[in-house]
Amino acid sequence: MTNALPSADLIARFTAIVGAANALTDQADIAPYLVESRGLYKGSAPLVLRPGSVAEVSEILKLASETGVAIVPQGGNTGHVAGQIPRTGADDIVLSLQRLNRIRDIDPVGNVIVADAGCILADIQEAAEAHDRLFPLSLGSEGSCRIGGNLSTNAGGTAVLAYGNMRQLCLGLEVVLPTGEIWDGLRRLKKDNTGYDLRDLFIGAEGTLGIITGAVLKLFPQPRGHQVAFAGLKSVADALALFDKASSLCGPALTGFELMPRLGVEFTARHIPGVRDPMETVHAWYALIDISTSDSAESAERMMQTLLETEVSSGLVENAVVAASEAQRKSLWHMRESMSPAQKPEGGSIKHDVSVPVSSIPAFMAEADAAVMKAIPGARICAFGHMGDGNIHYNISQPVGADKDQFIGRWREMNAIVHGIVLKYNGSISAEHGIGQLKRDELAEVRSPIEIELMQRIKHAFDPAGIMNPGKVLKASS
Amino acid sequence: MTNALPSADLIARFTAIVGAANALTDQADIAPYLVESRGLYKGSAPLVLRPGSVAEVSEILKLASETGVAIVPQGGNTGHVAGQIPRTGADDIVLSLQRLNRIRDIDPVGNVIVADAGCILADIQEAAEAHDRLFPLSLGSEGSCRIGGNLSTNAGGTAVLAYGNMRQLCLGLEVVLPTGEIWDGLRRLKKDNTGYDLRDLFIGAEGTLGIITGAVLKLFPQPRGHQVAFAGLKSVADALALFDKASSLCGPALTGFELMPRLGVEFTARHIPGVRDPMETVHAWYALIDISTSDSAESAERMMQTLLETEVSSGLVENAVVAASEAQRKSLWHMRESMSPAQKPEGGSIKHDVSVPVSSIPAFMAEADAAVMKAIPGARICAFGHMGDGNIHYNISQPVGADKDQFIGRWREMNAIVHGIVLKYNGSISAEHGIGQLKRDELAEVRSPIEIELMQRIKHAFDPAGIMNPGKVLKASS
Repeated sequence: MTNALPSADLIARFTAIVGAANALTDQADIAPYLVESRGLYKGSAPLVLRPGSVAEVSEILKLASETGVAIVPQGGNTGHVAGQIPRTGADDIVLSLQRLNRIRDIDPVGNVIVADAGCILADIQEAAEAHDRLFPLSLGSEGSCRIGGNLSTNAGGTAVLAYGNMRQLCLGLEVVLPTGEIWDGLRRLKKDNTGYDLRDLFIGAEGTLGIITGAVLKLFPQPRGHQVAFAGLKSVADALALFDKASSLCGPALTGFELMPRLGVEFTARHIPGVRDPMETVHAWYALIDISTSDSAESAERMMQTLLETEVSSGLVENAVVAASEAQRKSLWHMRESMSPAQKPEGGSIKHDVSVPVSSIPAFMAEADAAVMKAIPGARICAFGHMGDGNIHYNISQPVGADKDQFIGRWREMNAIVHGIVLKYNGSISAEHGIGQLKRDELAEVRSPIEIELMQRIKHAFDPAGIMNPGKVLKASS
Repeated sequence: MTNALPSADLIARFTAIVGAANALTDQADIAPYLVESRGLYKGSAPLVLRPGSVAEVSEILKLASETGVAIVPQGGNTGHVAGQIPRTGADDIVLSLQRLNRIRDIDPVGNVIVADAGCILADIQEAAEAHDRLFPLSLGSEGSCRIGGNLSTNAGGTAVLAYGNMRQLCLGLEVVLPTGEIWDGLRRLKKDNTGYDLRDLFIGAEGTLGIITGAVLKLFPQPRGHQVAFAGLKSVADALALFDKASSLCGPALTGFELMPRLGVEFTARHIPGVRDPMETVHAWYALIDISTSDSAESAERMMQTLLETEVSSGLVENAVVAASEAQRKSLWHMRESMSPAQKPEGGSIKHDVSVPVSSIPAFMAEADAAVMKAIPGARICAFGHMGDGNIHYNISQPVGADKDQFIGRWREMNAIVHGIVLKYNGSISAEHGIGQLKRDELAEVRSPIEIELMQRIKHAFDPAGIMNPGKVLKASS
């Protein structure tokens, strides 16, 4: 299906819905909406619409459906797979949710917050904190990503281990359908077994089935105890063994378990201002352990102490430091969050956002490392991530002194190698970033024909005119 | 769409797939598959098939698709809304999953179990326990309900507060589609953002989109500490305030918070052998508080002690007892689980499985009570349930001495009253039991036309021939 190109007359009709001030047509104004942060994709668009109400979103989609014009919804434009970037040369219209940024309601007793899709994640976190509540979704771009994008990509981040990803944090949605009709599913219910799960279908659909305009999100009590430690380990297998011990001891109080290689620690210490290796001893692998408790500060201290005393004596942990203050806790997390930026000054980096069953991580890593080193001798593997979720950011920095462009030119080849091993372990080629444009064609290769066929049927059932973010997630059906 | 009636020839073809011993045609053998436990529905069927493999399920559905014959999947036949019961006079064929009852794999380090859909819930719990792990789904019929039915109804139960319902406890599915094709979505991944969420679409679909034949389920560490208390309270509002305090103190260690009225305690003490009111004092309302901790027995004790000491001194809790042994803990839970059976000897009982936002429970209860008492003076309201989930089993026992049949004859009228108030609070008419046949027509009335339309489109996209459990959840589209 080919989308219609918007004529000047049609652009005027779209503009009339939001007003000229919120309909950008000057390419200089439009430019920031066309590129994503990694610079892998640059799209084109004749028009960016910034509606100020759900009713305006509805009118835009109604007109788009009637005329066959494609609409690309965009939140904070922080996505890593170009789901939010219009296609090149297709004259897609970008619909930015930025102006829909009102917190509609907060109910601390009911533990819910109701927000427009354009709210920035950090603003939701702050609003919750002001009511002594926690909204646990936490990720690198939290200062600029928007909750509608977090929902549309089923965002993960560093607190998934205890709180789940975005899907688990959402109770209800408001969605404008491609026809402009509004589905009001803004329920605040913990339990509701009344028919098919429309909510979870829109979550993670990357704006291809409709536009999320509002959401009911879960809040949690603020923890009273918080402990963060950094542990040095011999191997990935030992990290897995430590995760098993920590998870068994702490249960849901284990709020983070992040794996980092020696190389990553060196990169951050070398390139990130203020980051230092917190230990004098050197270790092949490191785990950042985060424990949060509701009842008291002491109970988190007790758990961390028990865990480390036991596992240092057993020899599983080679050495460990426990953060003694909030500043030190932040500093350890800052090192973890700097793993990706610290790779930039080291030259080209080929990235993978993959997951495997937690118990397969050591075998997967060993096999992937061998295959990568065989393909590119001297490649510097900096694989880190959310070990407790089985989610590894398997990043490969170029060999020292290699040509960056030539190295980056092997992106697809390295993807094929790493993803091949991921699939052997029945893993996922996109653990938390989604499919977008970047992994669209690969998805069709790695999933069974019947799975892709079911997705195409859903797409067609919800968006028969094919106007919602076409060419993302799935190839446009003919 | 009308389904084809299976001819003798067709019955022979279906029989050939599973073998004569597993194709029941004698009405005496078939009878148990046609009635549900409450006796509200009785269906009819010319044939019950008991396939012994996924391949046989696939062959059955292929033949059904080709011939237009309707198939009704059935697990343990414990559902409360007749989703598992064939229609009357439609010659639906029942497909029982009973023989698919193998635990395929258990991985304690990866914290997953892989099971056939016909496994009994209690068998899954036991298998987990044998590996020092917990499968937390827990409900009254756990000794006979089967995991495929738990998935198809997104079962809830008493541990949802901390562990979530079935949807949160499932990582992956194997589903036979109406055409007989098999979707292998048996992934063991905590994170997997690769396209539309097919898993959550099949979960809760009550067998109307395909037949779940296998599942990957999450396991958890066994808690080391467990405390159960029974607290006497003045009002539902005080119970909500106590829930807020308990949840804030205990966080995810609060594994149960159940509300019970004085009348329910009296009914259980009167009719259930071995159940006694655990307190000498009399209270209008009671809360059962369940706390589980991973790190030690002492930490659960400490939390329970802190909670009760604080809230007895504050006057919020009028009186409380804490179970001193595993036997006492079981005994308190037994009282809670006897709330429903204890209503039987008191005559007719009109039941509602509803949910409202947690913070609206007191207002909802007050309004519903007033409306019910106005409609039926002398009615004895015995509303109890999972307060932390906003899920109330709002049951109404007949007035003393009233005619049972006449009272039960007002079921629909009382539903209309109670559900009307539920909807005013943006609640759900089926919190955990599902829609089935019982609430199918009502669903179409209480949800927006666009919501029903989207569900119909999904149904049509997955089951164009209309053979999968027709007439359940949604009316058959014409």
